[in-house]
Formats: sequence, C-alpha cells, structure tokens
Amino acid sequence: MIIGLCREHAAGETRVALTPPNIKTLVEKGQTCLVEAGAGLAAGISDDDFKEAGAEIVDSSDAIFERSEVVLGIQPVSPDPAVRDAHLARLRKGQIIAGMLDPLGESELAQKIAETGVTSLGLEMVPRISRAQSMDVLSSMATIGGYHAVLHGASLAPRIFPMMMTAAGTLKAAKVLILGAGVAGLQACATAKRLGAVVSAYDIRPAARDQIISVGAKPVDLELENEESEDAGGYAKEQTADQLAKQQAALAKVLAEQDIIITTAAVPGRRSPVLITEEMLKSVQPGTVIVDIAAERGGNCAATKANETINVNGVIISGPLNLAARHPFHASQMFGNNLTTLLDLLLNDEGNLEFDFDDEVVAGTVVTHNGEVTHAMIRDILGLPAMQLGSPKEEPEAEADESKGE
Amino acid sequence: MIIGLCREHAAGETRVALTPPNIKTLVEKGQTCLVEAGAGLAAGISDDDFKEAGAEIVDSSDAIFERSEVVLGIQPVSPDPAVRDAHLARLRKGQIIAGMLDPLGESELAQKIAETGVTSLGLEMVPRISRAQSMDVLSSMATIGGYHAVLHGASLAPRIFPMMMTAAGTLKAAKVLILGAGVAGLQACATAKRLGAVVSAYDIRPAARDQIISVGAKPVDLELENEESEDAGGYAKEQTADQLAKQQAALAKVLAEQDIIITTAAVPGRRSPVLITEEMLKSVQPGTVIVDIAAERGGNCAATKANETINVNGVIISGPLNLAARHPFHASQMFGNNLTTLLDLLLNDEGNLEFDFDDEVVAGTVVTHNGEVTHAMIRDILGLPAMQLGSPKEEPEAEADESKGE
Repeated sequence: MIIGLCREHAAGETRVALTPPNIKTLVEKGQTCLVEAGAGLAAGISDDDFKEAGAEIVDSSDAIFERSEVVLGIQPVSPDPAVRDAHLARLRKGQIIAGMLDPLGESELAQKIAETGVTSLGLEMVPRISRAQSMDVLSSMATIGGYHAVLHGASLAPRIFPMMMTAAGTLKAAKVLILGAGVAGLQACATAKRLGAVVSAYDIRPAARDQIISVGAKPVDLELENEESEDAGGYAKEQTADQLAKQQAALAKVLAEQDIIITTAAVPGRRSPVLITEEMLKSVQPGTVIVDIAAERGGNCAATKANETINVNGVIISGPLNLAARHPFHASQMFGNNLTTLLDLLLNDEGNLEFDFDDEVVAGTVVTHNGEVTHAMIRDILGLPAMQLGSPKEEPEAEADESKGE
Repeated sequence: MIIGLCREHAAGETRVALTPPNIKTLVEKGQTCLVEAGAGLAAGISDDDFKEAGAEIVDSSDAIFERSEVVLGIQPVSPDPAVRDAHLARLRKGQIIAGMLDPLGESELAQKIAETGVTSLGLEMVPRISRAQSMDVLSSMATIGGYHAVLHGASLAPRIFPMMMTAAGTLKAAKVLILGAGVAGLQACATAKRLGAVVSAYDIRPAARDQIISVGAKPVDLELENEESEDAGGYAKEQTADQLAKQQAALAKVLAEQDIIITTAAVPGRRSPVLITEEMLKSVQPGTVIVDIAAERGGNCAATKANETINVNGVIISGPLNLAARHPFHASQMFGNNLTTLLDLLLNDEGNLEFDFDDEVVAGTVVTHNGEVTHAMIRDILGLPAMQLGSPKEEPEAEADESKGE
C-alpha cells in the first residue's frame, strides 16, 4: 500500500505520527511510504532522516492525500472551523486515515468524515485492554504528560523539591499531591518522587491505592470511601449530596497542606470532573502551585484557565495544554510505535489493511467505514440506531475502565 | 540597633533578604527590626508573617533608610542608571548597608557608595573559606540556580530524562553534560541524575573529578589535561594556543554526543569564560539544548543571548537570568540565614555592629568604610593605592578559589 505521513498544522503541535524507525519497518514489509516535507522538523527529525529510512519526501499535504491509500497524522483532520472544510475536502472514498479525531467530543465532525467515504481510525478510541496496550496513544502520551506536569509545577514553585542540608540551613522537601492516579498521575508521582518531593496521591478508585504505593507515593485516605462510597462489588457508587460535601471537606483539608498539586482526572470525550471547587480553593495556602493537566476539557480546578498561568489569592494555577508535545522526540517515538503496532494488527498477509469487526480492537477503534459512522458509542451520541458490523455475537464484556485519569 | 529590611525593586527579583525566622532571632537578641511593607510578598511571605516574628512594618523604602542604622536587602543600591542616584541619596554617613553590590563589576558605584559615608558589605565578596561557608550567598544561590537550570533544560528538551520501558517501546535516557563543577554545576549534576539522565561533567580543575563522582556523574576526560595542562603543583597552567585548540577539539567531540548541556563557569566580577565557541557549536547536534547559566556575564557559549531562548541551526540555546529568584521561598531562606550568620559575626557583646579588619571575613566583605573604598581588590580595580585597615600583619594566604563555577 501507499502510506502517507502528513505534517501537523495545529498551533503548538511539535509531534509527528511516525518516526524513521517506523518507516523502516513498514518499508521492509513492502509498503511504500510518503512523508510530507518538514513533517518531523519540530520533533528534531529531518527529511533526510526519513529519506534514509526509505521514505519518499513529498512537497505538500495535498500531494500526500492525493497519492496515499492510507494517511497517518497526529490530527489528520482538524476540528478548527478555519481549516476543517479544507481538510475534509482532501479525503476521498475508500481512503484510510488514522490519527486523533476526538470523535466523542467532535461527533459531528465524525459524521462529516463518514460522508467523505474514508475509513477512519480514531486512536483515542483504542480499547484499554491488555492486548491493545501497545497501541494505546492516550496512555503513552499521558506518560509524557505526567512527567512534564511535574517539571512545569517544579519550575513554577517557590520551593525546591528535594530536602537539602546546606551550610545555609536545612531546606524542607516540597509536598506534592497528585489527584487522579491514572497513567499521567502515576508518572507524575514517580517524577516528583525522583526529584525528592514528599508525594501523596488520591484517586476515587480504591484499586489505585496499590499502584500509588508502587510508584513510591503515599495514598491519601479521606476516611470516607471504604464505608460509604463503595458498593458491594468494590466499584464507586453514586454519591449523595451529603457524601460529596463530606468528601470535598476532607479533601480541602489535604489541599491545605500541599506545596504543589497536580490534577490529572480526565473522562474521554466529556468535561473533566471538578475536583477542586471555588470553595475548596479557599483552603489552599498562598504560594501553592496547582498544575491542572485536565485543562483541555475544562479542568479539574474550577479556576483553571486553559493555556494560562494565573494567580488567585496567591495560589498559582496553571492549565498547560498538549503536554506531550513539549517532548516531541520521545512522544513521537511512542506515538509512532503505537500506530505501527495498530497497523500490524490490520495488515493482512497481502500487506493490505483489512478490517475485522469481530475483533474488539478494530470495532472499538474504527470511527467511520463505508460512508457511515460505525463506532457504537459515537452512533449513540449522534442518535443513530445501533448497527451490526461483525458476525452476530454476544455483547463483549466491558474491560475498558474509563474513569481512569489521563 | 535598628535593622531595616527593604523591598526589592529589580525586575524579576522575587527574593527577600531576611525571612521571619531571621527576624525572630534578631528580635530575641534585642534588635529592633523594621520591614518595608510587601517586602516578602513575591517570596510568599506576608507582612503579617513578619509582624508575628516581631518586626514593625514600615510604609516606604525612604522610611526604612531614614530610620534604620543597618539596612539589608538583596540589592540595596541598584546599579541601574534610572534609580542609582536616588538610591545613593537615601544613604547617610555612619549607616551600614549589606546586600549584593557587585563591587568587582560596578567598582565606580562602590566609589560613589564610599562617598556617602556608609559602611557597605558586599555579600558576594565573602571569602570562600570554610569558616565563612555559612555566610556565602554565592554558594547558596548557586545551589538553587543549579537545580533550576536542570528543570529549565528538561522543560525545553525534546526528550525526557529517565529511561523508560513502556508498552510503546523503550525510551533512552537523556545524556546531560555539565560544564563547570562548582556549586551550581554539582547541584545540576545531582538534579539531572535524580531525574534519571545519564550525566557527565567537565571542569578544568582536576580536583573537581572526585566531587563530580560523588554526586553520581561521570567526569569527562579530554585526555589532555593530565599531561599538558597541569603544573607540578597540580594547578592549571596557562595554555598555549595549540593546547587550547586541542582541548576545544576534544570537547567539541564530547558536545556532539549530548542531549542537554548546562554551562556554569563563572569568574566573580569578570566576563564568563567562553567554553563553547561558534566553531565548537557546529559540532552540537540539532535538538540539543544548551542552558547557559553564566549568561549574566556574557555566557559560556558564544551564541548565548541573556534572558532569551534562541534556536541556532536546531540547537536550542537559553540564557536564563537570576535563577535563584525562580524559587524565592527557599532562596530567601538561604539568603537570610547567610546574612544573619554574617551579622552574628559582626555584632559585639553590646549588640552593635563592629568591624574587626583583622578578621579576613570582615576585611574581605566590607567594601566601603569611613568614606573610602576599603576592599583591596576593588581599590586595585579603581587604581587606588593599597591601604592599611587592621593591625599590621602578614599577607593572608589565598584560600579562596575563584576559578570555581558559580
């Protein structure tokens, strides 16, 4: 097949969806790879690096879309109204695209993509099951994001992280709290710990406790959850207003003791949960730094402004966006490996992409196919009736856990 | 005595010269402490914090200088032409001031300060001997600076620092080189090591080798110094042009292998040595980050621009200024402890400041006294004849090592 790699155009985007080693692997398997000129520059990868790996360098995005059977990108179709129609116009029936499409947040765009007749793979939709872990860009980007969140918080903090005994006295280690112990939160725990901070973490899922301990942090116990917020099966049950108020009051006390707070709770396609309300913010001490990496979808702190660092009564609140793009070399390496592994799953013995909708990874990742939105969750959001794609079968068990942090 | 703490006015200055625990100590010893309103705000210290420690809050700088016998500040007299004369006008005969005065760089300002009749203590002049280590602000600020330099470099780097084995492949640890292994350089080594990087360091002083090893970094061996650049006594001897060229070529090879380079070589009062010439820069790989913390005095890299981050053929070169001010809580704590320890040395049994010029710490720190520049090095720069201050004595042995990094 002819596989094209397009250059990114979003502001602040520095990543590239494949790196030279990925190209080399694809070429060795007999694929033809086209790379748009300059695609890797912001990630520190030159056109020559891609050429050496076996790619043909192509001048423009239009040429990439014209010539390629498969087009790969971080964001091959932008939801930005300024370029969206132009991006849709370059797609053609039967073509395959893969990238971040945010189909849960941008379901109407998914409908428009369907109408072009392309088969689209939304990489954020890869089911969070063991078998698909190596294809999961949300996890790999969250790894980089959690790491950068700590650098960002440490840079803004009036204190240094490690305890130091110096000729000018002893400096106390900084206290860092991580809210949300998904991939990003656990990586933030590990990074803050590396830097010498005293690290604790909180997650509504009781199962996160062991993971928090395993990365060297202390799980925060609000002394509510065990009795009140868990149902018989160990899942979080819906809280009453009274329970929520108690939980918030208990968390507010913990917030008051911190020097740096990093919030990481995200729900795919939905507004991020508000973990720190305006009221709770009043108990946070001046000089404390809050890094809210859920800012892209409204933030975990009520006062967060996306892409800004603000000062609210002495509390520094920062909502940086697209953290993974701050370390594009490694982020691109991971993204490219995830994408190549996904392609491997889809490539048949003849080297063509084939979509077996009986495979839950395929059914869970493909957003549009044959002119229709095929993904069950997105059809549901759009109010479309359920459709049968694979062989008739029982409902697959829900293995993905969507309440995880980023 | 009446000791006044003034608020800082330099752009980007967030530190304060004393913290509440220092005030408490001075008040307990019977001193009266005045603090200018808002002096600690940027460091996260409120007027109430100072008041609780026993200080009287005073409205303006002018009032502080009018009422105080001793005025303390990070920079009590600014060299900035816009405010310098106003700052000099508020000094009066017999008053004592202490702070960063940069008398080696601003020797003419030292002369003007002398003419006001104040006794001034230039904190950067504290001799680098064991006994004065607890008063040495250059060392304590370099500790914070070296730490921040690594956060700054890590934030700018296309790579993450730690090695990671993930479902999306193995990420190689970043290679970090520190040039100059003084206090800042060694702290940079330790911090980069904490973050998981592969760290090496180079210093022209052979004695630095063990210190580099002790903080977990690998000393770089240019395979020149042992035979060629050391004299019989183990000191660096002056290099011939040929030796310098060989050394630069050898270092250029090392630079080519790095992901992050942090340069820290400073000489008090003089232009920083150029360690990375324009020619050597050509061998640095695109994507490499150079953080030059010697930028304030011209920089260790020929292309550095102070207070800017630039891209030279893909190499990111950053020259951040006043790094200690990025972590004002801990920097102020250390500065205040250094200053309080120095005051302790000067306070006599009656609780007054007394200057014993037989003490090399006193003679080495006092810049002006009784209407004259008294410091031997500054008199020398100004072309003034040597003067006799303490009791007649032999020349003190040179214990300070000025070729150290910051």
